Amino acid sequence: MKLLIGDKNYSSWSMRPWLLFKHFGIPFEEVLIHLNQPDTNARVLALAPSGPGKIPCLVNDDGSATWDSLAIAETLAERFPQHALWPRNAAARSRARSVSAEMHSGFGELRSNMWMNIRASFPGKNATPGALADIARIEAIWRDCLDTYGGPFLFGEFSIADAMYAPVVMRFNTWQPALSEVSQAYVRRVTELPAVKAWIDDSLSETHTVPYQDDCP
Amino acid sequence: MKLLIGDKNYSSWSMRPWLLFKHFGIPFEEVLIHLNQPDTNARVLALAPSGPGKIPCLVNDDGSATWDSLAIAETLAERFPQHALWPRNAAARSRARSVSAEMHSGFGELRSNMWMNIRASFPGKNATPGALADIARIEAIWRDCLDTYGGPFLFGEFSIADAMYAPVVMRFNTWQPALSEVSQAYVRRVTELPAVKAWIDDSLSETHTVPYQDDCP
Ligand SMILES: N[C@@H](CCC(=O)N[C@@H](CS)C(=O)NCC(=O)O)C(=O)O
Ligand SMILES: N[C@@H](CCC(=O)N[C@@H](CS)C(=O)NCC(=O)O)C(=O)O
Repeated sequence: MKLLIGDKNYSSWSMRPWLLFKHFGIPFEEVLIHLNQPDTNARVLALAPSGPGKIPCLVNDDGSATWDSLAIAETLAERFPQHALWPRNAAARSRARSVSAEMHSGFGELRSNMWMNIRASFPGKNATPGALADIARIEAIWRDCLDTYGGPFLFGEFSIADAMYAPVVMRFNTWQPALSEVSQAYVRRVTELPAVKAWIDDSLSETHTVPYQDDCP
Repeated sequence: MKLLIGDKNYSSWSMRPWLLFKHFGIPFEEVLIHLNQPDTNARVLALAPSGPGKIPCLVNDDGSATWDSLAIAETLAERFPQHALWPRNAAARSRARSVSAEMHSGFGELRSNMWMNIRASFPGKNATPGALADIARIEAIWRDCLDTYGGPFLFGEFSIADAMYAPVVMRFNTWQPALSEVSQAYVRRVTELPAVKAWIDDSLSETHTVPYQDDCP
């Protein structure tokens, strides 16, 4: 399988499925397509014509495409039942799906004000009321899950739910909003996970830049 | 199980899981909470404290909550394997998940310009370039799926993917953008499905209104 991803420094949606492949040791080939180029869309469509021309996109062995981070995650969970991509317990799994879907369609204020840029440091900036409200909800989700399932990750072992929130962890490292100790400790654990460290390391050595995301006025 | 939903005339996200319960004959109790009231959020949170206070939300028999339309759909698919909520074929299923997730996190221009209001008729209005681009992509998805799987629904029989797009069908009935014949025929088939007709009939007899969504300047 080929996974089409964007620049690791910036592509928050790509990070999610990539972490699942890496963490669970599922073999894959990665194809990095630079974001924000005149031909970004065309290059994705050339490899995956049925999709929306966005990344991440999985090109299956038969040439068909599976696109969107959450659809890729569900598809991997189904194809590799030997790995606990979702928690094994049914009640935990339905909760994990809820917080993952909430991330997938929500938190627009956080996403637009505190974009992912792993190399950058913008402490204290862009802390708009909307972004802070999103952060408060995220902290409540993390606290509830860590309390209920005992950590170290949201549902015990690392799962799709943690992968969905990993780019938020990257944003928190960059923008450094005030966080509870519970959240800070979770941020550290995610940052230190080998698969996450590997993504961060790769992002640090990238040379392609997206200039408008490197500045924060 | 209790399914918390909003007013049927307006609540596009609620329509999706409700149709799944209804179409597949899964027993449930519906609890309708009026949208856009000072206590909408509080009423949802009172019944489902762990969620974001939004609808739809499923309150499980053990009192726990499963929220977000897509997470509810995946959870029902898993709990009721005797019904083909997702297509039975693995390749079709991964494609169905892709188009469902694309709907779940996308089409923001269509959603904000052509909101769901089943009782209203606003033909030709709000056809902004962004809304038209979203409509073009939706028509491409429908055409591809109907071509590949032969209809009458996106993946053959009615599935979660059709439920995800059913509120788009309602919008098309209200705003009447120009559509291909293939799309028009699909719109008619979805509109006439018994579960969809039941939702529409209920919406027509509702008396609670959301005034700002009843006007289109
Ligand atoms: N809902 C999608 C979002 C995908 C998305 O927006 N990808 C961005 C990059 S992170 C993209 O491809 N942008 C380039 C473009 O739209 O041309 C998912 O979860 O995968
Ligand atoms: N991504 C969510 C969206 C849920 C949503 O935004 N629900 C709206 C009504 S359709 C809502 O609850 N609004 C009331 C509020 O936010 O207080 C889903 O797929 O279920």
